[in-house]
Amino acid sequence: MKATVLRGNEMVVVDDLPAPTPRPGQVRARVLACGICGSDLHFARHAHDFVRLAAEMVEPPSLTSRGIDLGRDIFMGHEFCAEVLEVGPDTDAPAPGTVVTSVPALETETGHITLAYTNDAPCGYSEEMLLSADLLLRVPNGLHPNLAALTEPTAVGFHAVTRSGIRAGDGAVVIGCGPVGLAIVAVLAARGIEPIVTADFSPARRDLAARMGAHVIVDAGVESGIEVWRRASNGRSMVVFEAVGSPGVLNAIMREAPRRTRIVVAGVCMEVDNLVPYFGAGKELELVFTFGYDHDEFAQALRSIADGSVDVAPMITGTVPLDQVPDAFRRLATPNEDAKILVTPAGAAS
Amino acid sequence: MKATVLRGNEMVVVDDLPAPTPRPGQVRARVLACGICGSDLHFARHAHDFVRLAAEMVEPPSLTSRGIDLGRDIFMGHEFCAEVLEVGPDTDAPAPGTVVTSVPALETETGHITLAYTNDAPCGYSEEMLLSADLLLRVPNGLHPNLAALTEPTAVGFHAVTRSGIRAGDGAVVIGCGPVGLAIVAVLAARGIEPIVTADFSPARRDLAARMGAHVIVDAGVESGIEVWRRASNGRSMVVFEAVGSPGVLNAIMREAPRRTRIVVAGVCMEVDNLVPYFGAGKELELVFTFGYDHDEFAQALRSIADGSVDVAPMITGTVPLDQVPDAFRRLATPNEDAKILVTPAGAAS
Repeated sequence: MKATVLRGNEMVVVDDLPAPTPRPGQVRARVLACGICGSDLHFARHAHDFVRLAAEMVEPPSLTSRGIDLGRDIFMGHEFCAEVLEVGPDTDAPAPGTVVTSVPALETETGHITLAYTNDAPCGYSEEMLLSADLLLRVPNGLHPNLAALTEPTAVGFHAVTRSGIRAGDGAVVIGCGPVGLAIVAVLAARGIEPIVTADFSPARRDLAARMGAHVIVDAGVESGIEVWRRASNGRSMVVFEAVGSPGVLNAIMREAPRRTRIVVAGVCMEVDNLVPYFGAGKELELVFTFGYDHDEFAQALRSIADGSVDVAPMITGTVPLDQVPDAFRRLATPNEDAKILVTPAGAAS
Repeated sequence: MKATVLRGNEMVVVDDLPAPTPRPGQVRARVLACGICGSDLHFARHAHDFVRLAAEMVEPPSLTSRGIDLGRDIFMGHEFCAEVLEVGPDTDAPAPGTVVTSVPALETETGHITLAYTNDAPCGYSEEMLLSADLLLRVPNGLHPNLAALTEPTAVGFHAVTRSGIRAGDGAVVIGCGPVGLAIVAVLAARGIEPIVTADFSPARRDLAARMGAHVIVDAGVESGIEVWRRASNGRSMVVFEAVGSPGVLNAIMREAPRRTRIVVAGVCMEVDNLVPYFGAGKELELVFTFGYDHDEFAQALRSIADGSVDVAPMITGTVPLDQVPDAFRRLATPNEDAKILVTPAGAAS
């Protein structure tokens, strides 16, 4: 079996993996599409930091990097849609041929594996993977696997918006129009939030934000999304979503934010960041860190994509076969016009 | 008139100020007691940073440092109790002899002056000051002026606890037992929160925390307040109050906090701080910055001190005349056994 794995700091295609065998409670599935997540790029570049910070953190998240051996190949790819090929013994699961998605978790006889960064089980950048039968969600008939693969990032958007506590009548400012920011825009638009102000340096990403429902599009190289909001808002209440995850962005938002603003931190910055706490104190800001989603939000994301209430299709800016994942990582590592690139190990589905 | 002022980086006693004259809407009052606030120590040491950061901040707080001329003497002292000496023309105000307190604000014909750090009006480290008649609260008969002077820091505690959203059944961990931490402990105790876990390096301050209602007292040099909570809590929900305001403390709390913890940032750190955002993201923490109080909270603080429901008396660890304010600043600048030192320009009241 073929897969693309992280070996050292490089993404490497390997072609000699044994096909996985489903145990009771599991299915073997063929990956149809898997999104490349910004966190994957971060991980490939900063794997040692991930592991070190997770080791320092008391009560780390389950989607963590503890117990990863950086000296061995690491499987990645947690935004997948797959087709069931084989059901494990004594297992109640959708029949072979069923198209499914799942939260990126695999229950095994020896414990839980997070299907994101692991030495222990193939993930979405593989031809095949194992999934837990209990966690499978059937992709509704007719929904393209590429769209179903966007369930995971859309769930991140649902979760961030839910945690924001945003209410009808509030506005929103979304800083950063990468996949996380775009998913947030899509969910906010579906909830009728208006206006949604977005800011990004990339013209292509600003265009995507407009297509996904943002009302005011700001060139971050020219002016600040928060300043544009301030001019137009007449003091209305709003929530800021930080969806960049680079050092310095959060402090800039804190410096600019109106008094008593709630700032939802959805970008995952893996480096040490500098903040001026006085900006937070002086204006009594709130920082709400958000990460991941729960099972209900994941299922809600899939339903919303299937029923058309959340339109994430514009986010897909390309598909690549497994062989080209290393190239795609290099391409995404520098500012560019891409948003979500999907890996299609079984070939691009029609 | 005598006052202690900030001149350059030094607290200096001056003895040649004109007695202030009340304008319409104002009273002239004799300062009976004024607490030395940790922010005053910070300001005396970092005045340039205060002014620079306030200038950088969009929508700075009213209790700010904009427009301060650091080349001129600066009046300080915002935790005061005073006796009305003279009522301005056409002014409805308590009669001379009435003991009052007030939020640290003075309305003038040319605008609002915050009675905290200002070139423009004497504050609490002065024999006399002007106050706005509309803002005066009568100190209930029999309440000692020294206790009434604690209204302001107690209001800070009320505000922090209100903003925390803490509910019956939650516990609390208060990191730092200086005046802010102690006021928070007193308010939490008055609300029946249990347990209140506190941590400080100073044995004297830990002793004060116990006297003011904390249930579990941790030596921060030996173990972590959050770890002590974790061992005893069986996963109960709690709120952490950061009441130190020094670089590094917030990040240590974020590293240690249980998942989904709300952290109320009550200490005012005036330096750039380093954070690991991943600690916040991975555990979906919330940071709620808190600062100051509103008029209702200020009045509530005075009532609560007067009726005995909040006992802040143990916090007072000394009184000094105006001449000794420079010494007191030096003493408080290094770790010591003091909590709240009161300046008593009119001599220590009996």
